[in-house]
Amino acid sequence: MKLATYRDGSRDGQLVVVSRDLQSAHYATGIASRLQQALDDWNYLAPQLQDLFDSVNAGKGRHAFPFDPRQCMAPLPRAYQWADGSAYINHVELVRAARKAEVPQSYYEDPLMYQGGSDDFLGPTQEARFLSEEWGIDFEAEITVVTGDVPMGALPEQALDGVRLLMLANDWSLRNLIPGELAKGFGFFQSKPATAFSPVAVTPDELGEAWDGGRVNLVLQSSWNGRRVGMCEAGPDMTFHFGQLIAHIAKTRNVRAGSIVGSGTVSNKGVTDADGKTDWPRGYSCIAEKRAIETIQDGQPTTSFMQFGDTIRIEMKARDGQSVFGAIEQKVVGP
Amino acid sequence: MKLATYRDGSRDGQLVVVSRDLQSAHYATGIASRLQQALDDWNYLAPQLQDLFDSVNAGKGRHAFPFDPRQCMAPLPRAYQWADGSAYINHVELVRAARKAEVPQSYYEDPLMYQGGSDDFLGPTQEARFLSEEWGIDFEAEITVVTGDVPMGALPEQALDGVRLLMLANDWSLRNLIPGELAKGFGFFQSKPATAFSPVAVTPDELGEAWDGGRVNLVLQSSWNGRRVGMCEAGPDMTFHFGQLIAHIAKTRNVRAGSIVGSGTVSNKGVTDADGKTDWPRGYSCIAEKRAIETIQDGQPTTSFMQFGDTIRIEMKARDGQSVFGAIEQKVVGP
Repeated sequence: MKLATYRDGSRDGQLVVVSRDLQSAHYATGIASRLQQALDDWNYLAPQLQDLFDSVNAGKGRHAFPFDPRQCMAPLPRAYQWADGSAYINHVELVRAARKAEVPQSYYEDPLMYQGGSDDFLGPTQEARFLSEEWGIDFEAEITVVTGDVPMGALPEQALDGVRLLMLANDWSLRNLIPGELAKGFGFFQSKPATAFSPVAVTPDELGEAWDGGRVNLVLQSSWNGRRVGMCEAGPDMTFHFGQLIAHIAKTRNVRAGSIVGSGTVSNKGVTDADGKTDWPRGYSCIAEKRAIETIQDGQPTTSFMQFGDTIRIEMKARDGQSVFGAIEQKVVGP
Repeated sequence: MKLATYRDGSRDGQLVVVSRDLQSAHYATGIASRLQQALDDWNYLAPQLQDLFDSVNAGKGRHAFPFDPRQCMAPLPRAYQWADGSAYINHVELVRAARKAEVPQSYYEDPLMYQGGSDDFLGPTQEARFLSEEWGIDFEAEITVVTGDVPMGALPEQALDGVRLLMLANDWSLRNLIPGELAKGFGFFQSKPATAFSPVAVTPDELGEAWDGGRVNLVLQSSWNGRRVGMCEAGPDMTFHFGQLIAHIAKTRNVRAGSIVGSGTVSNKGVTDADGKTDWPRGYSCIAEKRAIETIQDGQPTTSFMQFGDTIRIEMKARDGQSVFGAIEQKVVGP
């Protein structure tokens, strides 16, 4: 099923069930008013939401209305956890190659992950406001999952059973703040402002066979100022699947319902032609990766980060062409 | 006023108002059922909670009952943000001196802070469960604040106005996992398991003059296995006050109601005698600091980290001897 959160002036919004084709929606009133509430009591509430979803898909929702992504907050407008991995090691390899650094062997065995702020997420069409262009404003197109309760010590396969929902994320990053922050040793903080999420969160069964052992075998599209810059395959190059990412969190603590876990920038390996020249025909899911590729190819980056007024659109389509999650469509604005 | 959360089988517990002397309590039913709810609508609900607090203090609460900290969850059993600073640079100086590293000048101007997990906090008397003693189990006695909404770009004085409540925290740390994690560059993650909080959260006015421009001028006591190991002055050596810590978060994003912000290990400067010998008579608020002091004095640490069965008690008393927050009293247990 597909779920969204409609703006209603409150901090958590109102839970709505959205038809598979994203054309109509229905308030989940009487079942659950907020998405976190459904996640807290999933086994009891999910079947009721599923029944409503079936009705809406059949055109039988009594109070259905046209679905409008512009009325959406993030499916979870705030969450108790946002843990973001860097599961596409190809991205790390490119960024490191650009500065002539090796990727440590441990990166292939143990996921990189940072704890993000989760008190103030952005809706899918909400403007992304930054106080300075000098900070190196960048989008990051990612896939995320929302978990149920996963106990401390869970193994990857068990952790994978904890996946309740999937969403897209735009993990806004301030690239020029990163070197200074990482040098201090405590990880990202100011360099990771509020993250935006897709209009709709979907259960794994909505992906059909494209949900493949904790990976999503579909293409993540990114369009910057209307120009398609990324058509990245999300499945094959994901070094760690979502079960492994969740298990990484659960090594020393319980993971509780409503935790959001991210894949990191979706990234594909380059293709080398007969002349030994490597290119990246699938494009990029963040500008930092494009700049790394330029540095590898030409010795320096030529693409600038985003400016006030720029737009970014992130979307993923099923094999039948249907948008799975609806689109993140944001504009960068100044103070 | 003083607020706590009683266990009731739900994820968020039941909000109770606790008398100033921590002897009696009263459910806040009819005002707010959960603490987050009160924080979400503070201006409207706080005066009503204050009225109930006054009644309970006057012995006039209609349904008051004896307050039992063992029934408490963390005041916020889960939160939308847990951002922990390292505001006592003396602690950083000691840890760095032990490994003969300098403290960069920037550490005195810009707070160190990491984003912690906030989906699964421990209550004040809840056992702290770890899967291995080999991870280097350590307590960390800290002061924390809970904020209201603080807008992006807030300056320290404005951010300080956003402080709604104070609590104590035991920021459990797994010391032997830290070097490997920090070497990966993304900051703490598995090395920071679930944090525990004091039974009671208090409004700043409960501290009277001890709440001094964003610092708490009282002594934080830590007792390990019944032995007093820390009597640290929380006020004078706090390099960054809470307004500065909150403003650090707000530099690139909004800070939303219910965010918890921590001071880091409370730490005091050493005292050097006439012979030039330095000692730390106020003890320590985490074992890592004790081991750093031993290394500085004797070339190597002699105090081991905690073992299964160990206990830790963390408490802060007002100048009249009254426990301000109640005590964190936890036992370390194995799998």
